[in-house]
Amino acid sequence: MEFRVLKRCKSSKARLGEIVTDHGRLETPVFMPVGTAGAIKGVSPEEARDAGVEIILTNTYHLYLRPGHELIEKLGGLHSFMNWSGPILTDSGGFQTFSLSKLRTISPDGVTFRSHLDGSTHFLGPEKVMEIQRALGADIIMTLDECVAFGADHDYVLASVKLTEQWARQCLEKRKDNRQALFCVVQGGIYPELREMSARGLVSMGFDGYALGGLSVGEDKEKRERVIRLTSEFLPEEKPIYLMGAGTPEDIIESVKMGVDMFDCVIPTRNARNGMLFTNNGKLIIKNARYAEDSSPIEEGCACYTCSNYSRAYLRHLFLSKEILSFRLNTIHNLYYYARLMSGIRQAIREDRLAEFSHDFYTGKAESL
Amino acid sequence: MEFRVLKRCKSSKARLGEIVTDHGRLETPVFMPVGTAGAIKGVSPEEARDAGVEIILTNTYHLYLRPGHELIEKLGGLHSFMNWSGPILTDSGGFQTFSLSKLRTISPDGVTFRSHLDGSTHFLGPEKVMEIQRALGADIIMTLDECVAFGADHDYVLASVKLTEQWARQCLEKRKDNRQALFCVVQGGIYPELREMSARGLVSMGFDGYALGGLSVGEDKEKRERVIRLTSEFLPEEKPIYLMGAGTPEDIIESVKMGVDMFDCVIPTRNARNGMLFTNNGKLIIKNARYAEDSSPIEEGCACYTCSNYSRAYLRHLFLSKEILSFRLNTIHNLYYYARLMSGIRQAIREDRLAEFSHDFYTGKAESL
Repeated sequence: MEFRVLKRCKSSKARLGEIVTDHGRLETPVFMPVGTAGAIKGVSPEEARDAGVEIILTNTYHLYLRPGHELIEKLGGLHSFMNWSGPILTDSGGFQTFSLSKLRTISPDGVTFRSHLDGSTHFLGPEKVMEIQRALGADIIMTLDECVAFGADHDYVLASVKLTEQWARQCLEKRKDNRQALFCVVQGGIYPELREMSARGLVSMGFDGYALGGLSVGEDKEKRERVIRLTSEFLPEEKPIYLMGAGTPEDIIESVKMGVDMFDCVIPTRNARNGMLFTNNGKLIIKNARYAEDSSPIEEGCACYTCSNYSRAYLRHLFLSKEILSFRLNTIHNLYYYARLMSGIRQAIREDRLAEFSHDFYTGKAESL
Repeated sequence: MEFRVLKRCKSSKARLGEIVTDHGRLETPVFMPVGTAGAIKGVSPEEARDAGVEIILTNTYHLYLRPGHELIEKLGGLHSFMNWSGPILTDSGGFQTFSLSKLRTISPDGVTFRSHLDGSTHFLGPEKVMEIQRALGADIIMTLDECVAFGADHDYVLASVKLTEQWARQCLEKRKDNRQALFCVVQGGIYPELREMSARGLVSMGFDGYALGGLSVGEDKEKRERVIRLTSEFLPEEKPIYLMGAGTPEDIIESVKMGVDMFDCVIPTRNARNGMLFTNNGKLIIKNARYAEDSSPIEEGCACYTCSNYSRAYLRHLFLSKEILSFRLNTIHNLYYYARLMSGIRQAIREDRLAEFSHDFYTGKAESL
């Protein structure tokens, strides 16, 4: 993987970059929709591509448990298995052992946890995580890290930062001549000195990219933005910065200004399935009675497949009827919205007008639907 | 609507025909997938079309209850509402008041029933059913009939045949200058003389097509085929015969030989969602462990989107993971299978080799997957 900064914003730390992988080139800042178990919920690979998706994230935890990384490797790897020819990033699984599984136990060797599917016991250590991700064959893979809950005390987080650093080193050693790009994860909770320690330690080892982990776990927006701002100071300018698990369109715009290049989040897809649609004029809750006879598309001027062919009234009907097509049409629109948001951000950086773009974004939001 | 017989089979009563509607021309025998509530469950209109679907059936009962026929009319009719530009047939709703609703009461005026959605009380009479179907705007609409449960005694069925005939007459009167083709429904249970009476009575009024109703409600295959065979004797050769609610590929082939031109059934779509896939070599249950590492498509040589892009192993994984994409990919394959079956039947009739086609079909089925 190659990363190159193409242009820097004059009014912020935002930058336009490019990532080149064996599965194609893309520009940053970029948003990665989540294909949890080897499928973006609700859409086909072609639909995701048509909606503007250029890179996706899939979850090592889920694919390891089902159908298993060895099976996927045997069938030619994840790209072939799920029929997605573009770049893929896999996380390490660390976060899901924290958020999904029960009875997680952490030792210096790794994480022992129970599967959320059947309660069976499993172990993920740095070497194992590298083996799994090599078998899956994503373009970008992640080191194992410990995600600490919001509110953990300084001593706990300090120990955790050291553990995360140790695991990152083991992952780096295990990597050897693997062509996959390896990103590490900066931890340190909300403690500035621990974020700095984590960043410096990881940077000294040299990774292909740096992720900010342990955020969006309960801390408020101000604390989160402070962590992003200060941590990015210690990260090398020539490497991509990836904010894990974010976020809303607002989170993305603010983080881009702080220098973040990559994002992933379930919001566009999950909210779509719950009937919450993004538009330039704010959120639209499709089940609302006001849309019952509304023949207009979700958003006037939107060129997505859904807006090109279906009315709010029909989408409301599908949602209330729990039709499978409802999930799909809503998801296509939200993915398109996110892709358009990101390309708008990139274009604004290219043309030195990110501040104006941001202003327009917040002003547009003020309009009522 | 126009119907014309293009060719007659020499070895059976099968015929190749054509139907021309305001929304396009198609050849018979034809299978109509069910788009219950204004969507074929699991697929988009374009996918259905690509899978070979030429005409669909939607349910008056469902659309009347939600979102309401007046709303659909206001939004430009069902074709526009659901983004399906091909022909549509709507049933009368009579069958669903029998199969879905509670507390159905039949009077000479019509059917009073409780909605399966919210328990509210509704009334469907012949005039109302015509109003609803006019508002929906399908190309082919149906008269209201009473579907009688299997096992009803002769007196009950006799009265029901008379009622169905009376309602058919009222529908015909209500129709006036409506461009929509109007089909009636022959009833009579398993009593040959009542089927004959029903058929003769309806034929004397003159409809655009004749449906066989009240079948697949519990009677065995032999009884059902006897009814189809004898009833079709009393129906005009120049009009299409439509067997409602059938069926399996075997049902279709046997019924075609008895002169049936049109079919509808939830089997291809519902079974797909349950992981049961049709192939020329029999049924394939995708969740079976034997497919866990199977890199081959559902069916070798199948040109559907699913078989062109995905392995059995991936489809099994999606099914076990309850991914939305599972329903869709399975449905695309089954719709394609049915469309291919029907085009195979038509081609066989055209080339005077239906008996051979039928033999090959049953022989193929004998092979094990």
